[in-house]
Amino acid sequence: MSEAPTACLLIIGDEILSGRTQDANLKFLGERCAQLGIRLKEARVIPDVPAVIVETLNTCRALYTYVFTTGGIGPTHDDITTACVAEAFGRKVIRHPEAVRRLVAYYGHEPNAARLKMAETPDGPDVELVDNQVSIAPGFRIGNVYVMAGIPKIAQAMFEAIAPTLRGGDPVFSNFVESDVKEGDIAAELTDMQARYRHVSIGSYPFMRDGRHCTSIVARSTDKAAIASVMNEVATVMRAKGCTPTMGTSP
Amino acid sequence: MSEAPTACLLIIGDEILSGRTQDANLKFLGERCAQLGIRLKEARVIPDVPAVIVETLNTCRALYTYVFTTGGIGPTHDDITTACVAEAFGRKVIRHPEAVRRLVAYYGHEPNAARLKMAETPDGPDVELVDNQVSIAPGFRIGNVYVMAGIPKIAQAMFEAIAPTLRGGDPVFSNFVESDVKEGDIAAELTDMQARYRHVSIGSYPFMRDGRHCTSIVARSTDKAAIASVMNEVATVMRAKGCTPTMGTSP
Repeated sequence: MSEAPTACLLIIGDEILSGRTQDANLKFLGERCAQLGIRLKEARVIPDVPAVIVETLNTCRALYTYVFTTGGIGPTHDDITTACVAEAFGRKVIRHPEAVRRLVAYYGHEPNAARLKMAETPDGPDVELVDNQVSIAPGFRIGNVYVMAGIPKIAQAMFEAIAPTLRGGDPVFSNFVESDVKEGDIAAELTDMQARYRHVSIGSYPFMRDGRHCTSIVARSTDKAAIASVMNEVATVMRAKGCTPTMGTSP
Repeated sequence: MSEAPTACLLIIGDEILSGRTQDANLKFLGERCAQLGIRLKEARVIPDVPAVIVETLNTCRALYTYVFTTGGIGPTHDDITTACVAEAFGRKVIRHPEAVRRLVAYYGHEPNAARLKMAETPDGPDVELVDNQVSIAPGFRIGNVYVMAGIPKIAQAMFEAIAPTLRGGDPVFSNFVESDVKEGDIAAELTDMQARYRHVSIGSYPFMRDGRHCTSIVARSTDKAAIASVMNEVATVMRAKGCTPTMGTSP
């Protein structure tokens, strides 16, 4: 467990902080990292401010096995992620020959200067392109930093392109059991369970359904048997309160 | 502008990082902060790990005028935000008499020990409750930290309860103009515009509609006249490309 790789997601873009755009990349990446056994420890949403991006990148790449970024690699003036990543690594920005080749093949001619910006990466033989099966313009990897697009469909395609290259750990499994019990009515039992199952993370999430207070108890662990045991104990507690639990797998 | 208050949102909870739950509080808070003239500079999503919560709180409350937290103030064992905030401020956790009074009035009797946890706050005469019109159990303020529930409906009610007490700055306005132009086709003009309108933040956001590549250009500023001017210039550029722009206000 202690050697599982860790990760941080940097969500870059004024449009997320302004409330204009609902981020969807964290939810996707959270699920996929759990499946791959990578511990997503943190996500930070930061604005299109070069000094902030550079500093945050340098902080996070020192803290985590992997840093994934989304946003800011398009053709317009507000797409500054590549320049900031280069600065964070002390590199120049170059036009990557293979990326140019892909764009030319895609457009059927030399793209304009703005679109050629999408072929830029930091300089260095260690920089690798990240394939983009959706719209060609690639992301890239430098060191432990993976630079991806912000548009969810493209970010997801890019992540799937790099997923096979990432070092995973034991996958984290997650199951839920839920019913129309109020979480305050089973809190004492949950506290006791958490104390006995130290390597299972037990979460309690209240919600409303058809006007009734309900609770979903989620158990996360690398240990499937322990999860099953917790689920069964919770279901027993719920039944004792007169509720009918349902179970399933959960991200 | 330089004296506008700043803010950071701390989204606390394993369920967000695991991908189980789609956060909705950032989008809401981003919109409301812009309206109030508070600059939301950053959001961090962190797990239910006490040391991480305490350290992140202490880092962020030193950096920003306001820190808003969501998540982790319910009745169960995994609700640890209050204890962590108290630790960050070097305070004990107490059962807040007014919060207890509200819970007793709501339930019609003394709640069980788990639910009384929702009446806990850090100790000190400077701690103020944050009203919860949805489900009674309050949040609280200590120093520049506002502790709110994770459930969006409750978080929103709590934010509206504190909004009148927050110091605002000049509101940030935001308009958009969009059409089925490709952003790469107007990138040069946008770069030129951004250079001329230094106090307007111009963002370019591509999207697909009915299978066509479209672009939304968003201008954000405290200067409404400058926004209108940018919008008109962008619309002119779009028309010159044979597109029919539409405009509106945008978060």
